[in-house]
Amino acid sequence: MGFFTKDIKTMDDLFVHTLRDIYYAENKIAKALPEMIEKASDAKLKQGFKAHLGETENHISRLQEVFRMHGAEIEAIECPAIDGIIEESEEVAGEVDDKAVLDAALIAAAQAVEHYEITRYGSLVAWAKQLGRPDCASVLQKTLDEEKATDKKLTMLAENAVNMRAAV
Amino acid sequence: MGFFTKDIKTMDDLFVHTLRDIYYAENKIAKALPEMIEKASDAKLKQGFKAHLGETENHISRLQEVFRMHGAEIEAIECPAIDGIIEESEEVAGEVDDKAVLDAALIAAAQAVEHYEITRYGSLVAWAKQLGRPDCASVLQKTLDEEKATDKKLTMLAENAVNMRAAV
Repeated sequence: MGFFTKDIKTMDDLFVHTLRDIYYAENKIAKALPEMIEKASDAKLKQGFKAHLGETENHISRLQEVFRMHGAEIEAIECPAIDGIIEESEEVAGEVDDKAVLDAALIAAAQAVEHYEITRYGSLVAWAKQLGRPDCASVLQKTLDEEKATDKKLTMLAENAVNMRAAV
Repeated sequence: MGFFTKDIKTMDDLFVHTLRDIYYAENKIAKALPEMIEKASDAKLKQGFKAHLGETENHISRLQEVFRMHGAEIEAIECPAIDGIIEESEEVAGEVDDKAVLDAALIAAAQAVEHYEITRYGSLVAWAKQLGRPDCASVLQKTLDEEKATDKKLTMLAENAVNMRAAV
């Protein structure tokens, strides 16, 4: 980040800056997921987190592909947003003892992460199209679709099973 | 936040904790919006941010209503997630000079905020229902619907006008 400078001059700069932001975020998520897998009690939730770790690794590869397609250096820029989201989820998880309540808290935390990714990939897809790069947009769209599908699966898990047990 | 303690024992505790988290977030957003209104160049975007400030004040009142309905003390709990999202949006906005690119960055920042709210209100609505409080769920659902509508309006603004000018 170039504090006190005006490093982002064009739409292309904004696109690359945001690619680097989400690249940092995806790497941070890949590091946070093993602890969430460990903490989850519900078998389907544990399995869902495991599957999402695999997907996240794939999203990181896709971002590297887009960097290469766009001719931009593969680089991560510190992203205070994902740092805050993950810090908060760890704090809340640390305060919960009951397993079913912890599962509900873990799902909410994972959905906060998903929504951050959905909004960033949504902007990136729109910007790639505007910049005349439908090829980059198409790669990013695949990840966007997967993030949305994961968010829906988490909602179903929460509504059908985990919340029900936690509220008993 | 009670570090090293296990303050969240039940689903009800998790619900109240998250109400206090989003109460902090809404108040922080109300403070951040005037600067976004000032920075926006596009007339429709400026107007949209102004309308959202009014809505945000209404969301704060609704949260106070839910606290009262639920018999919980109206209180804000520091929320590192929204702090990070807003810190990042201010950092990025500070790096952009061109007005059209700044508008595109402001929209993306606002959508990151909206998505954080959508995920938190989504969890709160689901939990209120599970806790047998459809009355609280119904008040929270109104805000959730407004946040989703705001996010859609921002996408339309971005795709139809602002990004087009920024990419020129």
